[in-house]
Amino acid sequence: MYFCVMNIPKIGFLGGGQLGRMLLQECINYQVNISFLDPDPEAPCSFIGKDFYVGDYKNFDTVYNFGKKFDIVSIEIEHVNIDALEKLEKEGITIIPSPANLRIIQNKRLQKEFYKHHNIPSSEFVVCDNKAEIQKHYHMFPVFQKLETEGYDGKGVYHIKDLNSIESAFDKPSILEKKIPIAKEIAVMIAGDLAGNYTFFPPVEMVFDSKLNLLDYLICPAEISEELSKQCIDLAIKTAKAFNIKGLLAVELFIDQEGNVLVNEVAPRAHNSGHHTIEACYTSQFEQQLRILLGLPLGDTSIIKPGLMYNLIGAPEHQGPMKIIGLDKVNSDKTYVHLYGKSTTKPGRKMGHITLIDENIDLLKSRIESIKAHVKIIST
Amino acid sequence: MYFCVMNIPKIGFLGGGQLGRMLLQECINYQVNISFLDPDPEAPCSFIGKDFYVGDYKNFDTVYNFGKKFDIVSIEIEHVNIDALEKLEKEGITIIPSPANLRIIQNKRLQKEFYKHHNIPSSEFVVCDNKAEIQKHYHMFPVFQKLETEGYDGKGVYHIKDLNSIESAFDKPSILEKKIPIAKEIAVMIAGDLAGNYTFFPPVEMVFDSKLNLLDYLICPAEISEELSKQCIDLAIKTAKAFNIKGLLAVELFIDQEGNVLVNEVAPRAHNSGHHTIEACYTSQFEQQLRILLGLPLGDTSIIKPGLMYNLIGAPEHQGPMKIIGLDKVNSDKTYVHLYGKSTTKPGRKMGHITLIDENIDLLKSRIESIKAHVKIIST
Repeated sequence: MYFCVMNIPKIGFLGGGQLGRMLLQECINYQVNISFLDPDPEAPCSFIGKDFYVGDYKNFDTVYNFGKKFDIVSIEIEHVNIDALEKLEKEGITIIPSPANLRIIQNKRLQKEFYKHHNIPSSEFVVCDNKAEIQKHYHMFPVFQKLETEGYDGKGVYHIKDLNSIESAFDKPSILEKKIPIAKEIAVMIAGDLAGNYTFFPPVEMVFDSKLNLLDYLICPAEISEELSKQCIDLAIKTAKAFNIKGLLAVELFIDQEGNVLVNEVAPRAHNSGHHTIEACYTSQFEQQLRILLGLPLGDTSIIKPGLMYNLIGAPEHQGPMKIIGLDKVNSDKTYVHLYGKSTTKPGRKMGHITLIDENIDLLKSRIESIKAHVKIIST
Repeated sequence: MYFCVMNIPKIGFLGGGQLGRMLLQECINYQVNISFLDPDPEAPCSFIGKDFYVGDYKNFDTVYNFGKKFDIVSIEIEHVNIDALEKLEKEGITIIPSPANLRIIQNKRLQKEFYKHHNIPSSEFVVCDNKAEIQKHYHMFPVFQKLETEGYDGKGVYHIKDLNSIESAFDKPSILEKKIPIAKEIAVMIAGDLAGNYTFFPPVEMVFDSKLNLLDYLICPAEISEELSKQCIDLAIKTAKAFNIKGLLAVELFIDQEGNVLVNEVAPRAHNSGHHTIEACYTSQFEQQLRILLGLPLGDTSIIKPGLMYNLIGAPEHQGPMKIIGLDKVNSDKTYVHLYGKSTTKPGRKMGHITLIDENIDLLKSRIESIKAHVKIIST
C-alpha cells in the first residue's frame, strides 16, 4: 500500500534519539504527526515530541502494538524487532526500510554474504561459529572479529592481531574480516524513493585524530580525486540498488592504500555522516528521508558550500547534568549548533554536533581548531 | 539582568502561532526550553510544544503569572499586555523587545510621533480624536485612517478617498496618513543584540498581483538600484537605533514614485517578510532572534542565493479540515515547504509558505507560476 501525497499521514518511529529529533524538525515543516518509541524515558525526542512512548523496540508485542496505529513506520536504529515489522507490512502498513533489508543488515554475516553474492567489493571474510574455530584462520590474521548480531556503534568488534589475541575473543557466532590497510574512510548517503529513483549526497571523509586514533571530524566533499569520488558514488549506488533500498542508506567505504574502494558496512537510515547536509546541502538527509516517507519527489542533494561536522562529545571526567561552554568565544559566522536534548552528559557521549560551512576545506580545518579549543560539554 | 550564555535558559513566548513554531524549530537546535501562551487551544504551537498554555496575552494577570516562570520573555505579536511586561522587567526578567518600545509601536499615533521626533521620514499625518474631526483635514485627502490601537494585519485601516467616504470612517481616536504614490514596498529586517550590535538582512520586495491588488510573493534581494537598497538599509538601521532595539525589528518601507524612501511601519519581532531567510540566508531570522535571546554573537545574514517566498493561503470557498494538494506536481529542487500546523483552513488564512531559492530573480518568478497553478490549500 502507498497512500496519497500529503494527507498528513501518521508516522511511527522506532527510536527517539537525535536522529528522530532532527527528523521531527523536518516533520514540523510538513505538518506531519510523528510518534516515537524508545526505551529511555529521557531520550532526546522525549522533551519535544508530544507523542513519545516508552517501550522496547526489540520486543515483538511492543513494536507491533505501537506500529499498527500508523500509516508508515520507520527507524533510526537497525536493532529492532523485525518479526513485528513484517507482520505490520503484511497488514498494509508502509515500513521504510523494508524488514527484508533490515534482516540482512542486522546480521553481519548475512550482510557480508549479500555483498559477495552481488559482486560488491568488501574485505575478505570467513564465518566462525565459536572461539575454537578462530585459530584455523590464522593465515588471515590480523583480522577483526565481528559478532553476527548485537554489533552496534563500535560494540561487538574485537581486533585479533595474532594467535595470542584469540583468548579474549568472543565465543559466539561471528565473522572474521581481514584487516585492510586503509588510506581513507568515506561515507556516501544514498536515498531511494518508492518509485525507484535514487539520489546520492556527495562523498564525506572521516578525518581521524592520529594521536588519539579517534574520529576528529567529517568533511564534505571528501578530499579525494574526482575519479575516486566517482568510484565511491558508483559503488554506493550499486549497493543501494542491490538492496532495492527505499529510504536512506548510509554506505561506509574504505579506500585502501592501493586505491581500491570497498564497502565496509551500511546503515539503512539517517547517519552521523550526513548531519552536515542540514546546512551544507540544498536538501538535508532528514528532509530527503521525510520526502520519501511522504511520496514527494527527491530533493536536490548538491553542496551549497563545503562543510565540516564536528561531534560534540561529553568531556572526560564529566558526568551529570550537561552544560555547554565556550559558544560565545567562537566566530559565529556560518557555524551551526545542534544539541540533542540529552540532559545528562558522560564521557564520550554524543551530545550534539557543530557544522561549519565555508569556501573551502582548508578554511574549515582552520576554523574548527578554535571551536575544539573553546567549546566543551561538561557537567554543571 | 542578563544571564550566562547557554545555561539552557527558559523562554516564555507570548503567542503560539507560526512565528513561535518556527522559533521552536531553532530552539530544538540549542536545547532551549520554550513555552507558549496563546488564547487558541489549536494554535500552531499547541501541536508540537510540550509547554503550551491557553490564555489571553492581553490580560495582565495571565501574562504576569505566565511570564514570572521564565528567564526571558519574548513575543510574536505586539498586542500584548505591556503593564505586565513592565512589572516582569522590574523584577529582573529579560523582556525582548523592551516594553517601552512595545508601548510606542502598539499605538499608531505614538509610532508616527516617534518618527517625527527622530527625523525618520514617514508619510505626513494628523491626529483625529473622532469622526467629526476628519473633514477639516480634507486638503490632505486621499488619506488612510488608522486606528491608534487595535490595528493589526490590515484591520483598523480605512481608505478615505473624499468627503463622501467620511461617513463610513471609524469614530475613534485615529491618525490620518496622506496617501503616498507608491513605486515599491520594501522590508528590511534588523537584529539588535544586547551588546548594541546590529545586523541587517538584505532588502525584500513585496510583489503585488496587479489584477487582484493582493500581495503575490516576496523576493530577496529587492529589484532596486544599489543606491536605493543602501538608502533602505540605512533608514532601517537608523530606525532600529532610534528605538535602541533589542531583538528583531521588521522595518516596512515605501519607495515613492520620486524615489524617496519612507518608513511605513515597524514590527519588533519575526515577520512574514523574513521567512525566506530560513533557506536563502546563512542565518535565518529565527536563528538570529534566538541568538539574541541567548546572548550569542549575531550570525551572518548574507544571501546564499536569491529567494522568493510565497504565502500558502486558504483557498476561497474552502472551510474545514485542511489539505494541501499539488506538491507532487512541482519541481522539488530548492523548494522548501513550511506548513504552520493549522488543522482548519478558511478563505484567506495564512496556512503556510513555500520558499524557492535560485540563481536569479527571473528564474524564481518563472518557477513560482507552476507552484501557484498546482499547490492549493483546500478543505477535505
